[in-house]
Amino acid sequence: MQLLKDMIVTKGRVDSEHILKVDGFLNHQIDVQFLNEIGKEFKERFKDQPVTKILTIEASGIAVACMVAQYFEVPVIFAKKTESKNLDAATYESQVYSFTKDRYYKIRVSKRYLGSEDKVLIIDDFLANGQAVLGLKEIVDQAGAELVGVGIVIEKGFQQGGKLVRDQGIRVESLAIIESMKPGEVVFRP
Amino acid sequence: MQLLKDMIVTKGRVDSEHILKVDGFLNHQIDVQFLNEIGKEFKERFKDQPVTKILTIEASGIAVACMVAQYFEVPVIFAKKTESKNLDAATYESQVYSFTKDRYYKIRVSKRYLGSEDKVLIIDDFLANGQAVLGLKEIVDQAGAELVGVGIVIEKGFQQGGKLVRDQGIRVESLAIIESMKPGEVVFRP
Repeated sequence: MQLLKDMIVTKGRVDSEHILKVDGFLNHQIDVQFLNEIGKEFKERFKDQPVTKILTIEASGIAVACMVAQYFEVPVIFAKKTESKNLDAATYESQVYSFTKDRYYKIRVSKRYLGSEDKVLIIDDFLANGQAVLGLKEIVDQAGAELVGVGIVIEKGFQQGGKLVRDQGIRVESLAIIESMKPGEVVFRP
Repeated sequence: MQLLKDMIVTKGRVDSEHILKVDGFLNHQIDVQFLNEIGKEFKERFKDQPVTKILTIEASGIAVACMVAQYFEVPVIFAKKTESKNLDAATYESQVYSFTKDRYYKIRVSKRYLGSEDKVLIIDDFLANGQAVLGLKEIVDQAGAELVGVGIVIEKGFQQGGKLVRDQGIRVESLAIIESMKPGEVVFRP
């Protein structure tokens, strides 16, 4: 998606070979007009799928998922990372390993909002090591729902997540795949 | 806002005199069509204000803030609760006291995205004890920006937050104010 690549080049900042900051438009300050274009693009790519729910994970996935959901006219569910007294006791749960924090954390979705009749599209801002997506997939499996695809805004193609998820037979659509990067330079996969 | 009151009565669940669960449409599963109506209502109420940024706090404020921002055509910024290597070192910070967890937590906004030229509208899903809104106000003050108002979806009128915030001269617009509640009954302030 050319608009996204342009945003990454003009407004993103590469701080090292692993850190791409897109906090000016995607995950701290959020450009909602831009996210509407992202929403249209995912709708175009998954228009063949009878999506009933969009699933994401707090916190930075929520904005993208909500803007995308407008084009599918379905609800968003975001998996919670923290214990909350506002969450039902009956939940689907999975463990997600965080490489950056070197620990596992639990994600939860209330059983009330996901069931065997659902066709689920997972949406997230980044795909790097793939652990969050695989954790969300496990929740979809527990619900007996069908995972129809995964929509990612920015995939770090130099990390193993994309391969891990696609090797499970899951359809992944990434709007930009970064092959390599260093300060001042981002190389996209054609 | 009648539509919101109807949603609370038909889809909300009162688990005790303090816990109102609206996780079916507002803060776990998100009804984006409904949030669009919320967005229009806030735009109508604050149409006299030259808003340049919408400020909220992760996680459950993000969805509301993004949907509202579409009607103001301005960016959203969400304050982060957790340390993140994706956040700039230069941040505005404030301490927020959590009554439910009985501890202080820090919230942060990058200095890059808020400045003295900004007119800020704070948006959040709930107003209860008011600590989150006051923490966000402190960040607006640190930036030298102007706080033009606070838009709240559901205010718990039986807690002190609304009074605390309004006593500081801040304009608060709550789309539904709950006077009292118990299982099976929600009484709204007229």
